[in-house]
Amino acid sequence: MAERRTTSLKDVAKEAGVSVTTVSRFLNGKLDLPDSTKKRIESSIARLKYEPNPHARRLSRGQTDTIGLVVPDIANPFFATLVAAVEEEADSRGLAVTLYATLNRADRELAYLSRIERNHVDGLVFVTNHPDNGDLAELINRTGKVVVVDEDVPLATVPKLFCDNENGGFLVGRHLAEFGHHRVLYIGGPEEMISTQRRYKGLERALQQTHGDRATIDRYIGAYTIEFGREAARRFIAENLPATAIFAASDEIAIGLIEVFRESGISIPADVSVIGFDDVGPLHLFGPPLTAIRQPVRKLGQRALFLLMDTDWQPDAPLASEELLPVEIVVRDSVAPPTKK
Amino acid sequence: MAERRTTSLKDVAKEAGVSVTTVSRFLNGKLDLPDSTKKRIESSIARLKYEPNPHARRLSRGQTDTIGLVVPDIANPFFATLVAAVEEEADSRGLAVTLYATLNRADRELAYLSRIERNHVDGLVFVTNHPDNGDLAELINRTGKVVVVDEDVPLATVPKLFCDNENGGFLVGRHLAEFGHHRVLYIGGPEEMISTQRRYKGLERALQQTHGDRATIDRYIGAYTIEFGREAARRFIAENLPATAIFAASDEIAIGLIEVFRESGISIPADVSVIGFDDVGPLHLFGPPLTAIRQPVRKLGQRALFLLMDTDWQPDAPLASEELLPVEIVVRDSVAPPTKK
Repeated sequence: MAERRTTSLKDVAKEAGVSVTTVSRFLNGKLDLPDSTKKRIESSIARLKYEPNPHARRLSRGQTDTIGLVVPDIANPFFATLVAAVEEEADSRGLAVTLYATLNRADRELAYLSRIERNHVDGLVFVTNHPDNGDLAELINRTGKVVVVDEDVPLATVPKLFCDNENGGFLVGRHLAEFGHHRVLYIGGPEEMISTQRRYKGLERALQQTHGDRATIDRYIGAYTIEFGREAARRFIAENLPATAIFAASDEIAIGLIEVFRESGISIPADVSVIGFDDVGPLHLFGPPLTAIRQPVRKLGQRALFLLMDTDWQPDAPLASEELLPVEIVVRDSVAPPTKK
Repeated sequence: MAERRTTSLKDVAKEAGVSVTTVSRFLNGKLDLPDSTKKRIESSIARLKYEPNPHARRLSRGQTDTIGLVVPDIANPFFATLVAAVEEEADSRGLAVTLYATLNRADRELAYLSRIERNHVDGLVFVTNHPDNGDLAELINRTGKVVVVDEDVPLATVPKLFCDNENGGFLVGRHLAEFGHHRVLYIGGPEEMISTQRRYKGLERALQQTHGDRATIDRYIGAYTIEFGREAARRFIAENLPATAIFAASDEIAIGLIEVFRESGISIPADVSVIGFDDVGPLHLFGPPLTAIRQPVRKLGQRALFLLMDTDWQPDAPLASEELLPVEIVVRDSVAPPTKK
């Protein structure tokens, strides 16, 4: 298709005296324009014989009918569920999925990205879980046909899909504030990740909204792992329980935390309240059932595939976009009013 | 390699007057032979210029340096953990892994198997979860370079690796018998699967060993899913709790079961004892912590990769083998003596 089309979107934009973005969005039906502008674009298209072929405007199919899905750690139920959602959505469209697990290492990510250049897959849904020194973004931008999901690769100019991390943090903060907590411990993932930053930001906003200057938030920042959850619990105990409530920013962190609390005889919520984030594991069967923010994991997967298949991948089209999916709080029995001391 | 080697293992065996198996096992260092036989084989090898090239005797590397891993359902933490173990082991050997999730459907399995024929991967670790009508075995046998893991494909003549399901069932039965249970409900997966059959067989053997004819086992047979666990719980309640203890043959079944019991106010272990199987999810944090058989999931993954890479894949070599990895019981708080009625 690309070879037959000699006129680019740029040529049309120039001829019509509007920006490339305007033409692209107009063709995608995303922009309402004055009739005179519409006519100008349409006559430029006719004059230059530009073909906004509906197939060319989607991901080219038929080469491999396979898309690639890159995730950090398949043993983490969050990513495993995301993968299953992409699989199901792809299957319903008659596409195969090839999965690559990077073990969260940059060398493996770069290797897998290069596969798309060698045409083993038609496009990639890409999930990373560590900061980028710029190499990743460069390769993603060169490769094209990549949708970044869950965590950001800041310099990548491709469609991005995240859950609404900040509102998730806000819902945690509001729930804790309603129970009277103003000294809260935030246990987050890697410092540089938007999930860590935005969940904290939301938490802070909600607590300050209710408690103003009385709100105090401690931060233990590390990794979204069971091991880091254990570490954080040991530190919390060593520091003599410096908060009345804890926001554990992933299922894995919560699991490690609760493990150590059980071993140490610290009772939830009698001694300390806990809220989790993800709600992918069987938190409802825990003793006590854990209150948590539920991520729309299945929707993330479905929507990621939609973005990959229905994005206008023409080189001229503006690709950078950020879409947030809403989260919700699932209230169970792990939050109570602060214990008087 | 194969094209350059005109002499086959069969020729050597014929010339030396021994069986192909003998030559193959001798070359693999798995067989001690009388000196005279050794000499005969060695001189046949020399005369026929047969090259037992150490690379040719292993999985051919260098074509793609990628192996394929086929699993039914990546959202199931058991399979997700298995995948992670294969990934790690592959990574330590400098191999990439391509994962295919079949959604447990035969058409997808057959499609993925055909990829190895088209040289997209050097070999496959294959996990299925449904009965085979023979198509699967035929394709596996034709394809070669496939290791079957976790559940059997009965007619496939390739190396197979399972956990010791029967002993798992036995450990469950013995533990329940020790607590005095003789009326037990077995909630298993699909009827035709060896995991369902062998776990039941072990359970039966242990209960009969202690209780003889007093042992009564009911069977609800269905699927290794949360939904089937819920169904089984509802049936158990509708039938007025016809057993004092339940063996839930997977984490997923146990999760569905416990969910419905909680909603219905049935207390574990006061009203009924429960033992699970897999122990991949955070069963230790459940209320009460769940006693379960622990599968060696990580070892299954590591060993599967070893078998794929170190099997003698020559067409003449005998490939069918079955290896079992040991399981253990992890005792927590979900089993108590039967309630007197």
